[in-house]
Amino acid sequence: MKAIEGRIGRIFVLRLDHDDPLPQCIEEFAAEKKIRLAQVVFHGGIYKGNLVAGPRKTEDPKPVPIVLPVNEANESVASGFIAPDEDGKPVLHMHGSLGRAGKTQSGCFQKGVTVWLVGEAVINEILSESRIARVLNEEADIRLLEILD
Amino acid sequence: MKAIEGRIGRIFVLRLDHDDPLPQCIEEFAAEKKIRLAQVVFHGGIYKGNLVAGPRKTEDPKPVPIVLPVNEANESVASGFIAPDEDGKPVLHMHGSLGRAGKTQSGCFQKGVTVWLVGEAVINEILSESRIARVLNEEADIRLLEILD
Amino acid sequence: MKAIEGRIGRIFVLRLDHDDPLPQCIEEFAAEKKIRLAQVVFHGGIYKGNLVAGPRKTEDPKPVPIVLPVNEANESVASGFIAPDEDGKPVLHMHGSLGRAGKTQSGCFQKGVTVWLVGEAVINEILSESRIARVLNEEADIRLLEILD
Repeated sequence: MKAIEGRIGRIFVLRLDHDDPLPQCIEEFAAEKKIRLAQVVFHGGIYKGNLVAGPRKTEDPKPVPIVLPVNEANESVASGFIAPDEDGKPVLHMHGSLGRAGKTQSGCFQKGVTVWLVGEAVINEILSESRIARVLNEEADIRLLEILD
Repeated sequence: MKAIEGRIGRIFVLRLDHDDPLPQCIEEFAAEKKIRLAQVVFHGGIYKGNLVAGPRKTEDPKPVPIVLPVNEANESVASGFIAPDEDGKPVLHMHGSLGRAGKTQSGCFQKGVTVWLVGEAVINEILSESRIARVLNEEADIRLLEILD
Repeated sequence: MKAIEGRIGRIFVLRLDHDDPLPQCIEEFAAEKKIRLAQVVFHGGIYKGNLVAGPRKTEDPKPVPIVLPVNEANESVASGFIAPDEDGKPVLHMHGSLGRAGKTQSGCFQKGVTVWLVGEAVINEILSESRIARVLNEEADIRLLEILD
């Protein structure tokens, strides 16, 4: 485990609209507002797109993701974290639980997950001088959060 | 997508008791403390009441909700947001994931969802001069969060 | 319902590694940093260990927990709260939703739940002079959060 210390910065409240794409629309907002690090909490409707729902084999060092489609409108609760990639572009990694008619899927939001009707998100900016970024992990072949200090 | 910017205000930690009704008891607390905008995170036991678990038809412009009962005690994690209605009364919109014995329901907490044994909630007040409220959307016939600036 | 008021303190961003045990590694970090009260949000991979998924009987005053194993790697979203026990040691109570291949379990993280591949957690420290602790509830025979002011 590694950790960095920061302090609270700006807070943004987002009213997401029907058909807004997640996580892209929040990443674009973060880029526009020059948000480097932030915690994101989201609740709202979700439809379309895909979730990663675990690796095919738990013990595989280079995991092959189980990718499941999101069909129909779901009620969702999600948490995410914004950190820059190697080029300084904000990347939002977000996990959520999506329910519809008593069936629930939880997983990692892939590009193209889409807001249904309305979404509410709160972005808590974190101010810190520490070096932290989403960088490619060669072994897993996935971009992972790394603290570089 | 629309957004407002604010800054962090007071933090409240709530110890909810058995049979406290959600979201009402948090809404009453917010009214008493004059909290206008806040992010809420909750975890604890939940029983009784109802969840909205999606619309019957995803493409319906005036969605008919799928309403499911919460039976028996569940372990839950939830996120919500407090904003005023047209009369300035705080309204908490809250989504959660509820698990019992390996079965999970996720959805939107309806009035009458009830705490089982104990609940823990943290309220992060957001200070902002922006106009934001939960107003009736005529087309969907649902009260939705709207940024009015 | 009881409540305490506080204000935001330090923010910590944690990059959890494969095989880090939850909630212990966050509790040890809290002890080291002298964090007394904090809200925790987590998302990442989880495998191994157990979840409490409700009591066997909802109406039982001394609930017997339903304990379910976490098998294989799951994608998870979780929320927790750190408060001291009677001896001042930080205790993290945490609920999460874990998904794998379209099946979802939600429940309370027991000691030994383990990070798979990577986990991201944000700790929001809450500063308050109020007396609040996790103390044994004699009737339920469970340690519960209590506000002692």
